[in-house]
Amino acid sequence: MKINGRPYRTIWPQGGHAVEVIDQTRLPHEFVTLTLKSAADAAHAIKAMIVRGAPLIGATAAYGVALAMREDASDGSLDRAHDMLFATRPTAVNLRWALQRMRDHLRNHPRNERAALAWREAAAICDEDVEVCRSIGAHGLKIFREAAAKKDGATLNVLTHCNAGWLACVDWGTALAPVYMAHDAGIPIHVWVDETRPRNQGASLTAYELGAHGVKHTIIADNAGGHYMQAGQVDLCIVGTDRVTANGDVANKIGTYLKALAVRDNNVPFYVALPSSTIDWTLESGRDIPIEERSADELLKMTGRLPGGGIATIEIAAPGSPGANPGFDVTPARLVTGFITERGVCAPDALLSLFPEGTKK
Amino acid sequence: MKINGRPYRTIWPQGGHAVEVIDQTRLPHEFVTLTLKSAADAAHAIKAMIVRGAPLIGATAAYGVALAMREDASDGSLDRAHDMLFATRPTAVNLRWALQRMRDHLRNHPRNERAALAWREAAAICDEDVEVCRSIGAHGLKIFREAAAKKDGATLNVLTHCNAGWLACVDWGTALAPVYMAHDAGIPIHVWVDETRPRNQGASLTAYELGAHGVKHTIIADNAGGHYMQAGQVDLCIVGTDRVTANGDVANKIGTYLKALAVRDNNVPFYVALPSSTIDWTLESGRDIPIEERSADELLKMTGRLPGGGIATIEIAAPGSPGANPGFDVTPARLVTGFITERGVCAPDALLSLFPEGTKK
Repeated sequence: MKINGRPYRTIWPQGGHAVEVIDQTRLPHEFVTLTLKSAADAAHAIKAMIVRGAPLIGATAAYGVALAMREDASDGSLDRAHDMLFATRPTAVNLRWALQRMRDHLRNHPRNERAALAWREAAAICDEDVEVCRSIGAHGLKIFREAAAKKDGATLNVLTHCNAGWLACVDWGTALAPVYMAHDAGIPIHVWVDETRPRNQGASLTAYELGAHGVKHTIIADNAGGHYMQAGQVDLCIVGTDRVTANGDVANKIGTYLKALAVRDNNVPFYVALPSSTIDWTLESGRDIPIEERSADELLKMTGRLPGGGIATIEIAAPGSPGANPGFDVTPARLVTGFITERGVCAPDALLSLFPEGTKK
Repeated sequence: MKINGRPYRTIWPQGGHAVEVIDQTRLPHEFVTLTLKSAADAAHAIKAMIVRGAPLIGATAAYGVALAMREDASDGSLDRAHDMLFATRPTAVNLRWALQRMRDHLRNHPRNERAALAWREAAAICDEDVEVCRSIGAHGLKIFREAAAKKDGATLNVLTHCNAGWLACVDWGTALAPVYMAHDAGIPIHVWVDETRPRNQGASLTAYELGAHGVKHTIIADNAGGHYMQAGQVDLCIVGTDRVTANGDVANKIGTYLKALAVRDNNVPFYVALPSSTIDWTLESGRDIPIEERSADELLKMTGRLPGGGIATIEIAAPGSPGANPGFDVTPARLVTGFITERGVCAPDALLSLFPEGTKK
């Protein structure tokens, strides 16, 4: 998508020996790109959330393996890169998927071919992600069109949590892909953007990318969504996900579960947009998903722009009070209206109807 | 309650011609008191949330009327003070209750007696609030004892939203009164403190006062409570309220509704602690409660301590993105386990059993 009129992806190769990413920890205050030159750079970028969002984490990890192969194409190096990158974030399943795909692809090739193969495979993962997101957008657009048709020309109000936009992917986004397509198709649309504490990906990233694309939106506290649903001001809720289990349970940014409960209490449809690489067929239910516990500093400190310019990090909580910061929660399948995937839309208990290959995993 | 070992109330008379309050906009970073010398000072203190919390707003408004009577004890002055103070916050009903009580009390007395009478009546409102909160604490303590008995000596985990502690009242608090009494009675207790965006009264005020009293607590994002309930780590949820309607619907800080939904989904009891002055018998249901829309700056900016000391306000959202900031939401009576009042505990549809005088209003 575009920033200041210039089209970007979130990750792109730089001269064959490095990849460049948008430093998302600096957004929305500064637009800065960062060059990753090694697998360790890639691991750091994922861990420090310079890149975030399940699909982009997978893409960055793939390039991390490719960077490792440039330095040392041995089996040992491949395993070390895999393990180091896999340890960065425990919840998103795309990370495992991308790393496994890279290792499976490279293992049976001679060492002298691995660097070039890895580079092409990482690029393929990125290109496929763009196509997958485009398909998700097209399938979601049908749902948005139907919802808009019921509004008699009035603005369609969509609520989203966290950032599942193009900044979370390589391009387009998952949950936001239908938003962009609806906007581009001339459907009057407005997005309630959950701030998404504690890292504020909604207020910083989702608001930033919607604003850059010209989509009408309003930032609200995570606490406010239920009130707007009660007031009839939310027509549809759509989120991304970091992992979906075989039974349709959804791990996503902490707070998604609360929004799903409110949606259900107010008869608003709740959609989850995902590439199929996010489905973890090896887990039966959400109970088995490891929930990442992140630093309490993300909750107790806040970074932003000072009035005179410049960026500062301030302490915002009572001094000495401890904090706890689980990164994700699990929304049970029973609260989901439908999954929007690259192959179409399905009920939460019908993932196998779209992805019959899931039975083999 | 105590701060640095010294007992405080949140509001106290200063020499008969002024009242002093704790400036809650400076907490938890600085402990500063502020002198209010006129009804306009009192109105500003309420509007700017220097004082906040339904009971304390009522007490401050009462002293505001008393300060007006010192300057001019005419009927016109009484009405003007009433109207100015009433206009400060639309949602809390204690404000209306306290102002009505002051006007009713003063109206039928000669002007030369009004200043002294008003001063005594405001003090009486404060003293009564302390006793009411003490009673709420004692009734709540029974519930906490029963819940703790089921835990076989393990820590009782309580979740609260916003600040309904002594800083929201004159002393003791409403929702936190049973917490303090349980702690003082030696019941092992731990409080999950919702940060409470956008003004962060949980992370700043609730954490501050619990810490000062030595109660174990952990600050969490508003988004996280549902996850801890799913994990069985919340035994009981308790909140205050700004207005309860005759049918038992509860207006409280935005986000309370989402927590009540999660509590219900996980079979955790949900209690609302309130002085009966918070009941609005004139409204049949929560649909009729006016919801205050506050400045978006509360959401888009954040105040805290800089690393080198000093307080700064920073912009935290995407530049140019608008925000919306409803201050309250309404939790339907069906989600409430019980009301804890100064006269005892009752089911949400049984307020009249404890307060039969409500039928006359």
